[in-house]
Amino acid sequence: MSKPLKVALLGAGVVGSQVARIILNEGPTLEARIGRRLELVGIGVRRLEAERPGIDPALLTTDLESLVARKDLDIVIELIGGIEPARTLLLTAIANGASVVSANKALLADDLGELSRAAEAKGVDLYYEAAVAGAIPIVRPLRESLVGDDITAVMGIVNGTTNYILDKMVSDGSSFDAALAEAQQLGYAEADPTADVEGHDAAAKAAILAGLAFHTEVRRDEVFCEGITGVTEDDIAAAEQMGCTIKLLAIAKLTDDDRVIVKVHPAMVANKHPLATVSGAYNAIFVNSREAGELMFLGQGAGGAPTASAVMGDVVTVARNRHRGTASHRGSSSSSRAVAPIGESEAQFYVSFDVVDRPGILARCAGIFGDHGVSLRVVQQSYLADREGADASGFAARLGVMTHLTRESDLAVVVEELRRSDFVGSDVRVLRVEGF
Amino acid sequence: MSKPLKVALLGAGVVGSQVARIILNEGPTLEARIGRRLELVGIGVRRLEAERPGIDPALLTTDLESLVARKDLDIVIELIGGIEPARTLLLTAIANGASVVSANKALLADDLGELSRAAEAKGVDLYYEAAVAGAIPIVRPLRESLVGDDITAVMGIVNGTTNYILDKMVSDGSSFDAALAEAQQLGYAEADPTADVEGHDAAAKAAILAGLAFHTEVRRDEVFCEGITGVTEDDIAAAEQMGCTIKLLAIAKLTDDDRVIVKVHPAMVANKHPLATVSGAYNAIFVNSREAGELMFLGQGAGGAPTASAVMGDVVTVARNRHRGTASHRGSSSSSRAVAPIGESEAQFYVSFDVVDRPGILARCAGIFGDHGVSLRVVQQSYLADREGADASGFAARLGVMTHLTRESDLAVVVEELRRSDFVGSDVRVLRVEGF
Repeated sequence: MSKPLKVALLGAGVVGSQVARIILNEGPTLEARIGRRLELVGIGVRRLEAERPGIDPALLTTDLESLVARKDLDIVIELIGGIEPARTLLLTAIANGASVVSANKALLADDLGELSRAAEAKGVDLYYEAAVAGAIPIVRPLRESLVGDDITAVMGIVNGTTNYILDKMVSDGSSFDAALAEAQQLGYAEADPTADVEGHDAAAKAAILAGLAFHTEVRRDEVFCEGITGVTEDDIAAAEQMGCTIKLLAIAKLTDDDRVIVKVHPAMVANKHPLATVSGAYNAIFVNSREAGELMFLGQGAGGAPTASAVMGDVVTVARNRHRGTASHRGSSSSSRAVAPIGESEAQFYVSFDVVDRPGILARCAGIFGDHGVSLRVVQQSYLADREGADASGFAARLGVMTHLTRESDLAVVVEELRRSDFVGSDVRVLRVEGF
Repeated sequence: MSKPLKVALLGAGVVGSQVARIILNEGPTLEARIGRRLELVGIGVRRLEAERPGIDPALLTTDLESLVARKDLDIVIELIGGIEPARTLLLTAIANGASVVSANKALLADDLGELSRAAEAKGVDLYYEAAVAGAIPIVRPLRESLVGDDITAVMGIVNGTTNYILDKMVSDGSSFDAALAEAQQLGYAEADPTADVEGHDAAAKAAILAGLAFHTEVRRDEVFCEGITGVTEDDIAAAEQMGCTIKLLAIAKLTDDDRVIVKVHPAMVANKHPLATVSGAYNAIFVNSREAGELMFLGQGAGGAPTASAVMGDVVTVARNRHRGTASHRGSSSSSRAVAPIGESEAQFYVSFDVVDRPGILARCAGIFGDHGVSLRVVQQSYLADREGADASGFAARLGVMTHLTRESDLAVVVEELRRSDFVGSDVRVLRVEGF
């Protein structure tokens, strides 16, 4: 009988404790699928004293450096998150010849290239299915299944917390602050919700997805990122009026000149589009490619068990390779495509603003769009009689305008000009639109 | 510079011609992703004289045996379909040391185990993403992404032709024969539609999916298979009345005692279930697993370009392995789970039949269900006054009954008893129900 594959686990939080449970309880099943037994030799934690039912305290250590410095590890599973010390720990593990499984989107969004090259140089594996969209298998489909095709766009809902908050705003008519407070109370949002609500988490996933889809390296700081903190009840109502729902989207697209656009922002999504119906903790990712056409992947995007499923899929894959003395191809970053600035990105926009109620104002507003080559798809006018302060401000009507595909930089000029016009109120609101 | 990887293509039909186009036209892109050039050294065809724009006639041969007997092939792509000669050609290719990519669901449903073992013994790859659900990446997710989890059920729409025909019956109110004729005219159904409309194609895919999901070997002849030729306009109308749509489903489930149920049949699917809205040439597959929960995969299930996308993903994966002197793990069939007979399968059923209009008949009918432990969820009664022959037959009302979860064998006894009752018409119709 061959000796077991030695596994070290870094992190025993929501996901880590589930991963430990599966490795400890499902030994025979995993052995049958791998061809070798897995032996959990150590679990690196921040605090030894936390309650961890079913886990032998002798496995625990707070000295993660020494754990990964062991020369006999076959697999290191990193679930501590954040850039450091995770980055150094993984590079040490790789240098010592271990294959690595990580769910750390923040780290991978910054350092996937370096980690991949280190793993390749040592002939070990680096897998990270759980870093994007939880349980949804998306890394292998992009890295392998679609590698003979040319992907043109990836678009998805990849953050469950913001999806829950936006859902709440729609269903209860509550404000962002109220919906966030409720999400925090229920444990769906963290005490410091910045990474989720400002879009940073989604941006890290967008960087990873874009790199995989377009065979290049995209860093987190190249992703245009706008969170949902600015989404108002008025925005939600305007979306409803247009037959849309507001979702936080991560989008990666190829431009006509073969550069990459990567962006995260709230968008009005047409209700008939499948993404509009993705609710709560679910994530969904659309992929468009030249030969395959449109593909969709849907599943739970977070949570201990779903994320552990993705981690364990990687662990078994890596263990099988290890058992057979091989490693998988790391995926190519052969294209070296550049990331285009957001100004060169195209989108449809919904622009809304107050106007004075005088003859000819609609034409003058439409003229500002037309002057900059922005063509309009829908124009809606509503009166503000009911609205508090409508009389005092002198603005008696509100215009809502949906454009055709427009360059971000052109739209910015239009918005600037609207804001400067004495017949337009200063609160010019802009939402991007998808699914029409 | 290393020498190119030599590729032989068997079949240049709808899919094969697209695969040839991609290999011939996308050389530099494929080389960048693989790390080696692909060289298409021969294309096995049935007839040399067919028009094949862009393909050098010197590549063509009708002698497929000699093509795969070459000792210098790295990859053989099999797109001719059917059991023989495909099976012998692939075994010859493997024996000669070539890795193999196939889209041949009929062959794989019968011989995946034998082909896998042959490939493993020679240390070469066998990939077949295109054999199930066209462009949708489902083989890798089942074989790798979910391999650390326990899948409990797979359910999907995996045949576009029948999906198109059923769509037509719903939208136009047309009969099966009329809808089939239209599908044939438009090229969506073949001149001999048996494999599609009798469910054989879906059953082959179900066998492959079940084997992958449950780590066992399932043969096509172990799949319960009922096609759509018996679906009537009355069935479509009854489904509509129940808030459902009729779809041909492929279902694989684990039983409580760890056996496998695999079945293909038309089913009433609740309109609120995402499968109900999958239309036309689209395929969709739901996967339920213990840790990950519910996952859905959607995409084009057939057609030259989408299927070629899946084939080329396999070709690049296999070529990368070849270039690096390795092969992937073949996936495990470690569980040896048995396939349970269909009678032990459980489902919800919709049963409809004519009854004489006498007091107490509803109670007597309900009693027949109750006697066999079948509990009812919904009972609907409609009158047949409008229906031709209603008076002559003596049956004045029609009952539609939806059951709770029921064993197939129990339901069969109920149906038999209903048919024998003098107050029930002989045409007792049964449809399975999903999504409630």
